Amino acid sequence: SFSLLFLCTSQQIQFADDMQEFTKFPTKTGRRSLSRSISQSSTDSYSSAASYTDSSDDEVSPREKQQTNSKGSSNFCVKNIKQAEFGRREIEIAEQDMSALISLRKRAQGEKPLAGAKIVGCTHITAQTAVLIETLCALGAQCRWSACNIYSTQNEVAAALAEAGVAVFAWKGESEDDFWWCIDRCVNVDGWQANMILDDGGDLTHWVYKKYPNVFKKIRGIVEESVTGVHRLYQLSKAGKLCVPAMNVNDSVTKQKFDNLYCCRESILDGLKRTTDVMFGGKQVVVCGYGEVGKGCCAALKALGAIVYVTEIDPICALQACMDGFRVVKLSEVIRQVDVVITCTGNKNVVTREHLDRMKNSCIVCNMGHSNTEIDVTSLRTPELTWERVRSQVDHVIWPDGKRVVLLAEGRLLNLSCSTVPTFVLSITATTQALALIELYNAPEGRYKQDVYLLPKKMGDMRPFLCHMMSPSIISPAVMSPACICLRLMPT
Amino acid sequence: SFSLLFLCTSQQIQFADDMQEFTKFPTKTGRRSLSRSISQSSTDSYSSAASYTDSSDDEVSPREKQQTNSKGSSNFCVKNIKQAEFGRREIEIAEQDMSALISLRKRAQGEKPLAGAKIVGCTHITAQTAVLIETLCALGAQCRWSACNIYSTQNEVAAALAEAGVAVFAWKGESEDDFWWCIDRCVNVDGWQANMILDDGGDLTHWVYKKYPNVFKKIRGIVEESVTGVHRLYQLSKAGKLCVPAMNVNDSVTKQKFDNLYCCRESILDGLKRTTDVMFGGKQVVVCGYGEVGKGCCAALKALGAIVYVTEIDPICALQACMDGFRVVKLSEVIRQVDVVITCTGNKNVVTREHLDRMKNSCIVCNMGHSNTEIDVTSLRTPELTWERVRSQVDHVIWPDGKRVVLLAEGRLLNLSCSTVPTFVLSITATTQALALIELYNAPEGRYKQDVYLLPKKMGDMRPFLCHMMSPSIISPAVMSPACICLRLMPT
Amino acid sequence: SFSLLFLCTSQQIQFADDMQEFTKFPTKTGRRSLSRSISQSSTDSYSSAASYTDSSDDEVSPREKQQTNSKGSSNFCVKNIKQAEFGRREIEIAEQDMSALISLRKRAQGEKPLAGAKIVGCTHITAQTAVLIETLCALGAQCRWSACNIYSTQNEVAAALAEAGVAVFAWKGESEDDFWWCIDRCVNVDGWQANMILDDGGDLTHWVYKKYPNVFKKIRGIVEESVTGVHRLYQLSKAGKLCVPAMNVNDSVTKQKFDNLYCCRESILDGLKRTTDVMFGGKQVVVCGYGEVGKGCCAALKALGAIVYVTEIDPICALQACMDGFRVVKLSEVIRQVDVVITCTGNKNVVTREHLDRMKNSCIVCNMGHSNTEIDVTSLRTPELTWERVRSQVDHVIWPDGKRVVLLAEGRLLNLSCSTVPTFVLSITATTQALALIELYNAPEGRYKQDVYLLPKKMGDMRPFLCHMMSPSIISPAVMSPACICLRLMPT
Amino acid sequence: SFSLLFLCTSQQIQFADDMQEFTKFPTKTGRRSLSRSISQSSTDSYSSAASYTDSSDDEVSPREKQQTNSKGSSNFCVKNIKQAEFGRREIEIAEQDMSALISLRKRAQGEKPLAGAKIVGCTHITAQTAVLIETLCALGAQCRWSACNIYSTQNEVAAALAEAGVAVFAWKGESEDDFWWCIDRCVNVDGWQANMILDDGGDLTHWVYKKYPNVFKKIRGIVEESVTGVHRLYQLSKAGKLCVPAMNVNDSVTKQKFDNLYCCRESILDGLKRTTDVMFGGKQVVVCGYGEVGKGCCAALKALGAIVYVTEIDPICALQACMDGFRVVKLSEVIRQVDVVITCTGNKNVVTREHLDRMKNSCIVCNMGHSNTEIDVTSLRTPELTWERVRSQVDHVIWPDGKRVVLLAEGRLLNLSCSTVPTFVLSITATTQALALIELYNAPEGRYKQDVYLLPKKMGDMRPFLCHMMSPSIISPAVMSPACICLRLMPT
Repeated sequence: SFSLLFLCTSQQIQFADDMQEFTKFPTKTGRRSLSRSISQSSTDSYSSAASYTDSSDDEVSPREKQQTNSKGSSNFCVKNIKQAEFGRREIEIAEQDMSALISLRKRAQGEKPLAGAKIVGCTHITAQTAVLIETLCALGAQCRWSACNIYSTQNEVAAALAEAGVAVFAWKGESEDDFWWCIDRCVNVDGWQANMILDDGGDLTHWVYKKYPNVFKKIRGIVEESVTGVHRLYQLSKAGKLCVPAMNVNDSVTKQKFDNLYCCRESILDGLKRTTDVMFGGKQVVVCGYGEVGKGCCAALKALGAIVYVTEIDPICALQACMDGFRVVKLSEVIRQVDVVITCTGNKNVVTREHLDRMKNSCIVCNMGHSNTEIDVTSLRTPELTWERVRSQVDHVIWPDGKRVVLLAEGRLLNLSCSTVPTFVLSITATTQALALIELYNAPEGRYKQDVYLLPKKMGDMRPFLCHMMSPSIISPAVMSPACICLRLMPT
Repeated sequence: SFSLLFLCTSQQIQFADDMQEFTKFPTKTGRRSLSRSISQSSTDSYSSAASYTDSSDDEVSPREKQQTNSKGSSNFCVKNIKQAEFGRREIEIAEQDMSALISLRKRAQGEKPLAGAKIVGCTHITAQTAVLIETLCALGAQCRWSACNIYSTQNEVAAALAEAGVAVFAWKGESEDDFWWCIDRCVNVDGWQANMILDDGGDLTHWVYKKYPNVFKKIRGIVEESVTGVHRLYQLSKAGKLCVPAMNVNDSVTKQKFDNLYCCRESILDGLKRTTDVMFGGKQVVVCGYGEVGKGCCAALKALGAIVYVTEIDPICALQACMDGFRVVKLSEVIRQVDVVITCTGNKNVVTREHLDRMKNSCIVCNMGHSNTEIDVTSLRTPELTWERVRSQVDHVIWPDGKRVVLLAEGRLLNLSCSTVPTFVLSITATTQALALIELYNAPEGRYKQDVYLLPKKMGDMRPFLCHMMSPSIISPAVMSPACICLRLMPT
Repeated sequence: SFSLLFLCTSQQIQFADDMQEFTKFPTKTGRRSLSRSISQSSTDSYSSAASYTDSSDDEVSPREKQQTNSKGSSNFCVKNIKQAEFGRREIEIAEQDMSALISLRKRAQGEKPLAGAKIVGCTHITAQTAVLIETLCALGAQCRWSACNIYSTQNEVAAALAEAGVAVFAWKGESEDDFWWCIDRCVNVDGWQANMILDDGGDLTHWVYKKYPNVFKKIRGIVEESVTGVHRLYQLSKAGKLCVPAMNVNDSVTKQKFDNLYCCRESILDGLKRTTDVMFGGKQVVVCGYGEVGKGCCAALKALGAIVYVTEIDPICALQACMDGFRVVKLSEVIRQVDVVITCTGNKNVVTREHLDRMKNSCIVCNMGHSNTEIDVTSLRTPELTWERVRSQVDHVIWPDGKRVVLLAEGRLLNLSCSTVPTFVLSITATTQALALIELYNAPEGRYKQDVYLLPKKMGDMRPFLCHMMSPSIISPAVMSPACICLRLMPT
Repeated sequence: SFSLLFLCTSQQIQFADDMQEFTKFPTKTGRRSLSRSISQSSTDSYSSAASYTDSSDDEVSPREKQQTNSKGSSNFCVKNIKQAEFGRREIEIAEQDMSALISLRKRAQGEKPLAGAKIVGCTHITAQTAVLIETLCALGAQCRWSACNIYSTQNEVAAALAEAGVAVFAWKGESEDDFWWCIDRCVNVDGWQANMILDDGGDLTHWVYKKYPNVFKKIRGIVEESVTGVHRLYQLSKAGKLCVPAMNVNDSVTKQKFDNLYCCRESILDGLKRTTDVMFGGKQVVVCGYGEVGKGCCAALKALGAIVYVTEIDPICALQACMDGFRVVKLSEVIRQVDVVITCTGNKNVVTREHLDRMKNSCIVCNMGHSNTEIDVTSLRTPELTWERVRSQVDHVIWPDGKRVVLLAEGRLLNLSCSTVPTFVLSITATTQALALIELYNAPEGRYKQDVYLLPKKMGDMRPFLCHMMSPSIISPAVMSPACICLRLMPT
């Protein structure tokens, strides 16, 4: 998915539930949606604008409301069209750090490379996606959009999109029935037939495939972002049922580096600060795991004056930690003295009840790695321990002797639950998606067959895209121009 | 003042309005309170718990309410005693990073060095102050407390204090009349006479001095935190009217280092993230001024991958910037290319309208230094520019050609307005205040005269206090013990 | 080769001359040896002990000398056996940072896993190799040794080995005839027949293969370190003529990381300091290329207060540079202002005469990358420019207007010419070689065929070896033990 | 003194022997000279050009030689005039990083502010001093020069000065009689009478004062660099015997910062590398003392991947260490595990025999702080320990069980003994000296009385000089110009 699974993916989470066979999909939908929403619903509660949207005094279902935007259109279904103004502000904030998409808009102003494209989309509805959607429109496309997650919609952003004329069907807190109703409203329209799909998770693709096979056959291309969705596409392809070229935008060096090293280097600080206001300087921290995520966490905390220890079972990574100036230890050696414990190993039960028992008072425990299994949170749900929810995403677990351990996000991913993903990071994926749509829509007959494609070789590592992503002031334009030459952005 | 002026001080803000003569005080009170509240009210709107307290659906004045805590006491006046539970959580969070006070509580459990002390206090009412107040109580004192600022009270914390039995008179959004009423309620009690004052700003001290001269004479000591309050004490002393020993806890090496270098190193990141979600990596930033604040900002941003330029007119500081690896430039040289502009010079109009005109689209401008004059914000209030408030504390100023400059906190102090002050930093001041109260209360006859004292020489640079402040795991206990020996905490 | 080509390799130097076919080898030997020696002879002139060995007052060829060690043996040929004492000191220094080999010695004291092994070796003869050779002896092997390069022998170390009873045949400044004579003296011995080969460059292997085919057939294994030697082994294998298992110890993650990132991070500083005594703080430096070598150089210089720019044509690497906080530029943009220019691109003519013409007075130019082609040194050999050799490895090139450019090592590799390779880095390779010899010598019949092997899978990335390499204090023993379990060090 | 005591000073060494009364001076000269030379002679043995000058095959005293430079002059006495060419190279190298002096030369080309000045100087004779002397000549002065230390002269530099026409009397390895003979040759000349003194240590000043009182009276000014010399001047002044204005160029913020923080940040790395070739990455290091020197050492080592511990008894400094991310420990807590021990406390016996007994094999011990008392080296001179000199400045001290401790420079200052002082650092002092001479020589009657002056207030912190010292590319010229305005370089 655009922002959340996007990150999950790179942190190598295996969604056991999602590994179902494609054809069995409907029966398990409920579980998957639920498990996904658990990990995602938290994000927006910590978006910097969260406090504005919390007041949901209105309990009427959007489906039962009659709403009209200022131009008289009712071709949408959102929580409250009156929030459009506020949503527009959030979109404007996002635009400030998405210069690649903005420059794409400008470049294409004459040519409209997506003129004639009719795109149905199903992604998280956030300020950043809104910038993508409006870019697609600026490039000539008509768009109809639903949410890929029942909890992740920023209502005010959806309102702003609706006000701007996008046919958006999404709100925060949809029921499962609502979820499919919204998707259907995007596809099933009189006198309008989609010819492109932008999906995140595969639900939209599946719906079109199952319910509207005739539409499906005429789709020119599918762009899919998530691990799950890509997995389902490959299964469809294997079964010989994929009659449309699809593009997997999930894998690239850049994405790996951004999602893990550079992104986590910032979000570990952000996540800890927003939840605990802890001072980093002078704190003793143990980071479990020295992969890309661990490297990012360690670098940031060291830079701000924390004393950082690393646990690592892979000797190569352990050696890197040594050479980078971190003492490599067993968790049990330092567990009594550290102020913060951060897991990012990709393994289960890295922090056990025994460790938790030995932590000192006020120790903060959080997870930047495997979904919610790195810390054995279950072991804390025993009668002798008291849980106290002191803030959103922050629990004090209290031992009989009064010792408190500060558990963040109940052991789920801190950077998804308690910090924002930097817009610039999301910008990279969004630009890739836009370029993939342009490529598929304009590709000459025969370039793509009925298969799942990685990005074309020369686009593969996203090198050409980078010239868009870097502002001229960061990378000297002179450096960028040769790289830009190889970018065949528009069909000539 | 405890947290806010505390910081202002160290950033060397001159409160022109406050430099009034002490005796003329009442006539100007209104203006000063107002100007103070402008700079302070912003802080709590960004405290991590802000969203909980925003809903002030209740418009009845606390003075007109009948409230009783669970033990049947009505000896307080707060917004809503029912918020006590939530406030208790916030206090518990604060306790996690204030180990110096907690250890002070433990040490004193037997001796009660403040047994018999009757303290009236007037400070910000925040979770951190609550930890201080409850520590004073644990040491044997009786406390009555009001707020030193009409906007800065965390209502839920006040409620928690009231529930715990502290006589607290404070709420967010007091009128000026409320302000003095609350102070008076602390002092003017049948059968209870204060013998110690803990003040932040001098209002309480002035009130007692003017209204209750007989109480004033019997005060054993005053502890004052703010520049303003200290200034007023010196004036009183000069005029021969200070009949009580007073302690200036405003000046120390530690405080300077903490308030500026170490604190700003963290709050610049926190403030930028919470308001703009900007990614630091690869951003070009110019920091104006390379004093302690500037050094902190530069170190943090460099560490997270920003490309940092420095402007500095003092050649010694400029040389330090060079040796620390920053290119020293004139602002005009880089103004077109930078993504973020941060001022911390202590001068006026460092960023002029001309600079603002030349910034690129999306440039973020903020101030970590002199109150609200470093950026010439006034010059932006002209008809051709549109202001758009996109979030709390975040304005987009829009030029006729569509260019947006992102102005934070309207040019006021970013770290006060848009980030939290780390609890650990506040812990240092709070511990100093507690120790100063203990010292004054227990000092043998004659040790202190009717004058303003710096901390006694051996306490002066707070060395002994540090052993309390550092958790044993950070500084080895073996290292600390010799330092602790010179701490004569309790009268023996 | 052990230290020098070892490094060259990882810096991806293409030895055009070496890419000859194996069978044509003898005809081109001269050129190759010569070109190799040019790049290598410089190393020891900067070894920290250089001053001791410079005085070569003795012009008699070692082959014509009669020398005897203190035990009466003459089974060696070195420059001057009297230098043994000094050489022993150098070996002792090296031992201090080669704890992996030392611990290997201790472990094997009982078992002697190389008992019966008769090893002929041909490597650089340095203090570090001496530690390896003496370790092999301690493990039970008999050794005869020659030098793989005519210039690189540390005479005093050779003397120390001879004094200790090792049959060593090597001195600094051998003729080509000497070179082969020494090799032959190692192999061609009455009553002693080699059964293992440790080679660096393939010359020894080739000599045995050609001259002593009967010995060659009975060799149990060959361990080869250099790119060139490995290349020749593969050709032999391809031609069906390799009748012995051989092990390629040239490729591993660890080696890449060590030789480039970690090693260059230190040697860039060392090389610049020893040659120019330049202060790093406040200097402007441009690093051309942001691969592993460039990353190491940039990190070190940034950390010491230099202002670092990067040139990079690969957008992915450019993006990494950005995210690490370096401004990415074209060389021509900064060439007038920088104080130091460092090349590490792997390309030719990165620094052209035009760039050199525009540099400011005192600019230092050096190369950490491609042998001697990154800087167009040839373009500086024109009549209007004056060359002045101001120190060993340091030339001032003087323009008609008096401007001086400081050229280091005539554009050859700075870290080979002007700094020492950290012993710890060499220790990693040496340990690998020792373990490979043990493995091959003790492998049961049939485990290895007549082929070139990478290190066995589980040894492949050297993970198990790391437990030896890291001192217990760096990586906690508890961490290491699981890794050590998978190390099958001795045949059981 | 120019380079060595210069540094000693800032590291707060108390020269007990030097604290003698001025009038008793002659009797103790021997001891002082000797003790000074012990600490200084080492410097040049590690100058990067050392190997060239080591070969002192010539045992004839320079005083007995007849030497003539290429212009036929014999007005000098140096070791070997034939080394002039090589010395010129060393001077040219030094000029590359002394741009302040070079720019001073250029500025003054027209005016010759020292025209008529006859300067006798007594300083170390190094390449850097040579740049100073030749600058003074270029500004119009006539100079006669001797060495302030019997061991520190770079013979080849003295030769180059002599060849260039400077009357220099100095060589490496003077006897005490030579020492005073050289000084006398500078002062006692027919038809030439000095009117300015530039001294380092006070020996020249004392000689003129005692032997040539009539010359002394007509001196226009004395510029003194060293602690010792300044101390003697103050004593003379106190005794009412100083009939000449003197300038103390020993104290300034810049000097403190440069000599300690910035200089040591580089020389700790340089000193360790040149002596031991140790790899920094992954090493565990304990730095005793976290003053400016300790801060520099810690920053550099941390940056290169060492794991650094700090011992510190001052809680303020300990707190800074914590906030900078170092674990503060007692030495005994980590002594068994560290790879390197560095002292910079300013105290005695910080590293005791007991500590040394507990160190692990290969541990490196060195001192960056108080002369030679921080490490209790004396305690190692016991029969059961074997000392082995493995390199110049490097001793292995060997315990009965074979354990070796690597002691550098016998516990004397590592940065003086085993690394070079960056030319740029020396450039700052040299420029100050030149400007002080210009000021004193051109000052109008009455500006300076017969007293010891600090640099005039506005020169005091050397701010104006910095504009010379920073190359325009480092600090933007626009930044520097306002600072330069206040520099009244030439009398107008």
